[in-house]
Amino acid sequence: MFRTHSCGELSVAHLNQKVTLAGWVQTIRKFGAITFVDLRDRYGITQLVIGDEINNHLDNNPLGREFVIQAFGFVRERSNKNKNIPTGDIEVNLESYIVLNSAAVPPFTIQDDTDGGDDLRMKYRYLDLRRSCIKNNLLLRYAVTRSVRNFLHEQQFIDIETPFLIKSTPEGARDFVVPSRMNPHEFYALPQSPQTFKQLLMVSGYDRYYQIVKCFRDEDLRSDRQPEFTQIDCEMSFVQQEDILDTFERLVKCVFKEVINIDLKEPFERMSWEDAMWYYGNDKPDTRFAMPITNLKVPTWIFKNKQTLIPKTCVLENGFPVFDQAETILAITIPNASEYSRKQLDELTEWVKRPQIGMNGMAYIKYQKDGNCKSSFDKFYNADNIMGIASACSAKPDDLILILVGKEEKTRKAMSELRLDINARMGNRKKNEYKVLWILDFPLFEYSEDENRWIAKHHPFTAPHPHDIDTMLNNKPAIDNPHEYLKHPYCNLKANAYDMVLNGNEIGGGSIRIHKKELQEKMFESLGISEDEQKKQFGFLLNAFEYGAPPHGGIAFGLDRLCALLGGSESIRDFIAFPKNNAGRDTMLNSPDFLEVKQLSELNIELKK
Amino acid sequence: MFRTHSCGELSVAHLNQKVTLAGWVQTIRKFGAITFVDLRDRYGITQLVIGDEINNHLDNNPLGREFVIQAFGFVRERSNKNKNIPTGDIEVNLESYIVLNSAAVPPFTIQDDTDGGDDLRMKYRYLDLRRSCIKNNLLLRYAVTRSVRNFLHEQQFIDIETPFLIKSTPEGARDFVVPSRMNPHEFYALPQSPQTFKQLLMVSGYDRYYQIVKCFRDEDLRSDRQPEFTQIDCEMSFVQQEDILDTFERLVKCVFKEVINIDLKEPFERMSWEDAMWYYGNDKPDTRFAMPITNLKVPTWIFKNKQTLIPKTCVLENGFPVFDQAETILAITIPNASEYSRKQLDELTEWVKRPQIGMNGMAYIKYQKDGNCKSSFDKFYNADNIMGIASACSAKPDDLILILVGKEEKTRKAMSELRLDINARMGNRKKNEYKVLWILDFPLFEYSEDENRWIAKHHPFTAPHPHDIDTMLNNKPAIDNPHEYLKHPYCNLKANAYDMVLNGNEIGGGSIRIHKKELQEKMFESLGISEDEQKKQFGFLLNAFEYGAPPHGGIAFGLDRLCALLGGSESIRDFIAFPKNNAGRDTMLNSPDFLEVKQLSELNIELKK
Repeated sequence: MFRTHSCGELSVAHLNQKVTLAGWVQTIRKFGAITFVDLRDRYGITQLVIGDEINNHLDNNPLGREFVIQAFGFVRERSNKNKNIPTGDIEVNLESYIVLNSAAVPPFTIQDDTDGGDDLRMKYRYLDLRRSCIKNNLLLRYAVTRSVRNFLHEQQFIDIETPFLIKSTPEGARDFVVPSRMNPHEFYALPQSPQTFKQLLMVSGYDRYYQIVKCFRDEDLRSDRQPEFTQIDCEMSFVQQEDILDTFERLVKCVFKEVINIDLKEPFERMSWEDAMWYYGNDKPDTRFAMPITNLKVPTWIFKNKQTLIPKTCVLENGFPVFDQAETILAITIPNASEYSRKQLDELTEWVKRPQIGMNGMAYIKYQKDGNCKSSFDKFYNADNIMGIASACSAKPDDLILILVGKEEKTRKAMSELRLDINARMGNRKKNEYKVLWILDFPLFEYSEDENRWIAKHHPFTAPHPHDIDTMLNNKPAIDNPHEYLKHPYCNLKANAYDMVLNGNEIGGGSIRIHKKELQEKMFESLGISEDEQKKQFGFLLNAFEYGAPPHGGIAFGLDRLCALLGGSESIRDFIAFPKNNAGRDTMLNSPDFLEVKQLSELNIELKK
Repeated sequence: MFRTHSCGELSVAHLNQKVTLAGWVQTIRKFGAITFVDLRDRYGITQLVIGDEINNHLDNNPLGREFVIQAFGFVRERSNKNKNIPTGDIEVNLESYIVLNSAAVPPFTIQDDTDGGDDLRMKYRYLDLRRSCIKNNLLLRYAVTRSVRNFLHEQQFIDIETPFLIKSTPEGARDFVVPSRMNPHEFYALPQSPQTFKQLLMVSGYDRYYQIVKCFRDEDLRSDRQPEFTQIDCEMSFVQQEDILDTFERLVKCVFKEVINIDLKEPFERMSWEDAMWYYGNDKPDTRFAMPITNLKVPTWIFKNKQTLIPKTCVLENGFPVFDQAETILAITIPNASEYSRKQLDELTEWVKRPQIGMNGMAYIKYQKDGNCKSSFDKFYNADNIMGIASACSAKPDDLILILVGKEEKTRKAMSELRLDINARMGNRKKNEYKVLWILDFPLFEYSEDENRWIAKHHPFTAPHPHDIDTMLNNKPAIDNPHEYLKHPYCNLKANAYDMVLNGNEIGGGSIRIHKKELQEKMFESLGISEDEQKKQFGFLLNAFEYGAPPHGGIAFGLDRLCALLGGSESIRDFIAFPKNNAGRDTMLNSPDFLEVKQLSELNIELKK
């Protein structure tokens, strides 16, 4: 060992002890004949004091930032204590030192508020990882996985590794593939998730499985998506939805408590998918603040499910073409904002007109303090009409109502974004506030206009709600008339699925799975997968269901995202040791890269010209 | 939940309780009006008793093996207790049951002594995994990883994930590669190990890293090799070899104690690589038994290292051409075997003549009980000569000496195999006996005749022994005269490396790493990697060493092998949930498989005709 103690552990309990430390030179401060060096390692920082003799030597052999040294000396009490660090009561009076390695001047400062830009930090990721903010992120990540493993162990889950070189399946996202040299012209695929394997493990009787595992998706990367990402992947047998919700609600509470000392005491809110879409415009609402969306015109999609309440008040058709012709009219109410200036409103209007949002404009109603309303469409409606709208929006005097208009899906999305943006501006998206909820009752299928067929909303292994199984089995999936797809009974099928949402981010999702062969075959058929294709792609699973498959279900959490949110960040990249950029490149390694011709040849592949 | 209890937990403490169990029908035994069903789940087996009423129902709706049922009933004491299982004191008197899923007759019996052959078991792996012997292997594997994680956590190691989509490097074994769709004609590689990443983490100051991680090697598979395998991968900063040996000796002791309750009390034996090759013929000796090899002729390789002792006695050149012309003559002494019959000796001779061993024959000396020797080469040597050989072999009366002759490397290998085979026959390779040792002082380089260059014995990041660094830096690696390569100073360089060997299997290996740029460059140069190539392939590491790299070292254990050995098996396949066969195929999935043309096209590759 190059050290007797770490740089984070010495205190007055060690006074006068001879110690050896090893670490990196963080700072060097020279005061005449005395030099102070802050020595850093993973565990902390200790101040070294260099007196006369060595100081002279230092003049000729200067230490630099990030030099790695071994320091020998005695612990003594500081006259000027630093209460901000655990070792702040002491310092080490240096007797001698050895330079273990020198260091060139780093391309950016190794500090939380570094002067390095993203590209530079990625290229020199090994230096970026020295910054204590990033180090703390990776330590938090480790604390999360440790907490998860301990919790799941207590619940009798066992960690079982599933293979990485598996089979490509055309359903779902694009696979990364791996040419097989030993089986010419054949390819493995990297798993998008261990879904079918964990189901097989349930068929095998393992009862409770988990794995913290890398998954791969060859998608066009949006910012903050990675081609490889990590899942906390879990599956349980002999359970119903309620058992899964209970188990994993406790898991998440345990992680919050152990890792960031937050008590999530209340049971997690539960919201149907319909309600989430209705009131928040998306299926992962940020519920740290309310500000629900009011639908001012009955949107088409509510016909899909008869149980959804139709809003009490709608905008009257009154000769205002923007409203009259709109498929959807959505409003949110901003409290105490009736005095927004023209400029503020223009800014918001510009914001919703950006290409990313894509609205044509924004209408508003100012419900003034004096109880009167002023709107951007006063000439089309009388005061009562407008007050009616304001009241439909549950507005009070001094509130501002913002209204977006357009195609249903786009407008819902725009309103959801506007709601988030405004609340961010209002300071309502607080880093240290956590609101977790379950989204339930997803539709089982989505309709694909392009292909005139059903697509699994979750994935093809998700079971329908128990009361919907018969409807699924007893109806043909074919959609005879694409214009009337909404009348197809499959539109009303609900999935036995659940998502966990934290502060507007989906952090986990899962479902009760199909465990009967007939139902799984019906599901594949519903998705337009021919019998031949079913056998070829999923024959192993259908076979497995013939030999005694238990009822089972599971969930997977996105570890990268969960860690980022626990760390108070929206960016996953700084919670991954070696992330890739938006082009899927590792700029430090310069990867991917071209292969040697010999390698391609051995793999029996060629580059397409 | 479909159950109130598992099938492994009921006891007399639960008498008269109403319980619900769920699981698989293991056996059905009918005795007149009563039927006994053994219900199985991961946790155990519980006997269900089915009386009159339900029995009649059963006649018309027979249960079959591996049916999944939910059983409702009362716990009662058995009249006929089964002391072999934890639930053997009780049974559940069935009130009703539900068939959750039926099961076709399995293609092989779900029992430890199954009638299923390897191919069938692999195709129906989900059924094979139900057998309790395989289940116990996977539970053992989980116990090992849990024990490892807990130990390393206590030692302040942190688990940090490294990427799977990395860069291909031509040095070393063949990579699996992954075409990048977003970067046409470029490829990622799957990691053979996280070696350079863990070193970067040391440069970043993480101090103690570990990961239980999948690694990939595209090699022609020998039996019991897998294209994907799992490593316990560790790295520490500010350590010397002794610190690593100490830490990981404690880790392995902890795992043995916690997982199979074996106290490995003694410090692990340490053996130099030279001694291992000298006395056991290979670098991973099985030392559960002694039977060291005696070199009866000075082999050429001892010149490589002057510190090796030359054996005291050699065979005299005496006109026996087989001995006189031999490069190497090796002997082992089998105690109390002087009365082996002609037939037994012939069998052994045939064994060494098999193509896998490849010897031309075998000589022997019977050191008879009466103190006289009889050998297969009596006509060339007198009694004193032969007694001289026997004494060099430390033989005693009633011992049998077996002698192999030939080219050094081949003979050493053959003798090592013979030693193992004989001791297996003698019952000396006991499953439940564990002998762990460290092999130290490996050569840094091997000489490649084909390429007339040096090859890293361990890998290019392994540091030379501290006292050999100057020799390495101050000599040119070029070998001017291939016939005299043994005179090159690089032949004597030792690596600062170590292997951990358990019962004749390498279970772990590692080294102190190079942490200075000049030495790493010299190493690359020594391996014939040009400066351009160094920059292209390893530039990130050489750069990292410029910014304050600490002294560091590490080790990696092969988890699959370690688990197999702890489980008393030599075969890793049954300790992996979903292994591949010797052609690298998963016969259950039928993977690898052909891709769709569209996929290839998107990846900008074509199949070579």
